[in-house]
Amino acid sequence: MKQVTAFAPATVANVSCGFDILGFAIDELGDRVRINLSDNGELKVKEITGDDGRLPVEVDKNTCSVAIQAMLDALGIKQGMDIHLYKGLPLGSGMGSSAASAAAALVAANELLGKPFEKKDLVPFAMEAERIACGAAHADNVAPSILGGFVLIRGYDPLDVVKLPVPDGLYCTLVHPHLELKTADSRSVLRQRISLKESVVQSGNIAGLIAGLFQSDFELISRSLKDVIAEPSRALLIPGFYELREAIRSIGALGSGISGSGPTIFILSKGKDIALKASQESEKVFEKIGLGVDIYVSEVNDRGAYLQTP
Amino acid sequence: MKQVTAFAPATVANVSCGFDILGFAIDELGDRVRINLSDNGELKVKEITGDDGRLPVEVDKNTCSVAIQAMLDALGIKQGMDIHLYKGLPLGSGMGSSAASAAAALVAANELLGKPFEKKDLVPFAMEAERIACGAAHADNVAPSILGGFVLIRGYDPLDVVKLPVPDGLYCTLVHPHLELKTADSRSVLRQRISLKESVVQSGNIAGLIAGLFQSDFELISRSLKDVIAEPSRALLIPGFYELREAIRSIGALGSGISGSGPTIFILSKGKDIALKASQESEKVFEKIGLGVDIYVSEVNDRGAYLQTP
Repeated sequence: MKQVTAFAPATVANVSCGFDILGFAIDELGDRVRINLSDNGELKVKEITGDDGRLPVEVDKNTCSVAIQAMLDALGIKQGMDIHLYKGLPLGSGMGSSAASAAAALVAANELLGKPFEKKDLVPFAMEAERIACGAAHADNVAPSILGGFVLIRGYDPLDVVKLPVPDGLYCTLVHPHLELKTADSRSVLRQRISLKESVVQSGNIAGLIAGLFQSDFELISRSLKDVIAEPSRALLIPGFYELREAIRSIGALGSGISGSGPTIFILSKGKDIALKASQESEKVFEKIGLGVDIYVSEVNDRGAYLQTP
Repeated sequence: MKQVTAFAPATVANVSCGFDILGFAIDELGDRVRINLSDNGELKVKEITGDDGRLPVEVDKNTCSVAIQAMLDALGIKQGMDIHLYKGLPLGSGMGSSAASAAAALVAANELLGKPFEKKDLVPFAMEAERIACGAAHADNVAPSILGGFVLIRGYDPLDVVKLPVPDGLYCTLVHPHLELKTADSRSVLRQRISLKESVVQSGNIAGLIAGLFQSDFELISRSLKDVIAEPSRALLIPGFYELREAIRSIGALGSGISGSGPTIFILSKGKDIALKASQESEKVFEKIGLGVDIYVSEVNDRGAYLQTP
């Protein structure tokens, strides 16, 4: 086998009360990476489409090549590869764009190398790509993009990745307003100290969300989707956030939150009908504000990154 | 039916990373309450044994009568009852002593009244008893004492009680050192503000613990049993705490923590053998310190409070 293409999905990290520890994957929307083995022993980023020329092609800066290099280093081998990245995700949107590129690259490269790694073992290599792209080796986008479904990052010392079940019929509406929000700005508005009480409330909600996922208890999931720590600061950077929250509650959606560090907003719903209604409500809210949006409706993806037949 | 006796188990609240939101019930060890209907329309605490005369018999101060009164008020009825409380739990030990009395009283009284309430509906009445006994209407002891197993208190506004599964073979060793620790003192050492980072670590651990309970993943439970918020302050009040933690790790126990606000220490183990070894290790540690201890080994109780046949 000399050529393989893999797809990796968009992801929502910082799932409300799951701030910094939880992420989940979206179906269909994502990045594709094609890799050809080459004989010159070098990694090369040969082609990038869909990025308007904004992504670096340097091997030590591109998330695909950085992730693959980390993998090759772990194996202690050299292997030439030509990388073709087809971006399906907008950059800097809070939908795990850099993570999806790294995840697809790793799944393709792993296949070409004869599958030396289980999918779960690819996560640390993708984290190296995140370190380059975002300045921090977070796993809450890369892990769900690789593994699919909801993924808990229990801790980093050592890395502890726990795949969680996805209730049947859980849909996500992703609302991407056309404005750019730098991760650094989103980080800077966070309070560095919080009250004990707030921490207890957050703990109760994340515990409820995890239990709700295991029990397919949509009501419990809905009651638990509250972030008292990051969202109150960050939502102020996203026009329409609270208006949209009001609107989607009234149509029976489970809840909403900021995807990653924003500006994308995720809305969870039981069933596709409500997810589509949430999409219509989102259009209305942002039309009123006068801000363009892209909206995606998708079941929560439970398979993660996968190979595509040629 | 004119007379009913109920048993309610000891409980461990503040389960490590489950500070203020999680509790579980112990088998066998607990309080018994016998109630006889009376015709005079009054609640009376007729008898208390096992408390060395320390518990109040006044109807507005005793946790049994306060809980039952809250229940009668909710029903809008008057009913005379004579209450007999047989304490099996030491007072002020951090094993949910006041909660067990209230739970047993409520289960017995509910039966005598023809079961107007589901077990879960009894929790708010027991919380009124906690308000009298501890100054705060906490549910993390009363809910597991009534319902059994692990119980999450997701939040209080409104009360949201979620029963969680108990993995087969999960044992608890309760170590009660002979020293008294006032709840108020245990509260006063808590830091009222914590770092964002600590809150994220705590969230990751409670999420891992909940997932571990659902998946019967003892390793994950073990990795998650870490409290970075309350324990570092409170453990200093309990001699032997860290020595015991070291000792029980070496014999393969899952982890340990402070039961309630202490001084009792709980140790979780997979299987009875390790729980018994943990008991032996506890004896050694406290013998070295020169402090007497009572030690109980028990499976985690999954049935909660129950009626006893006469």
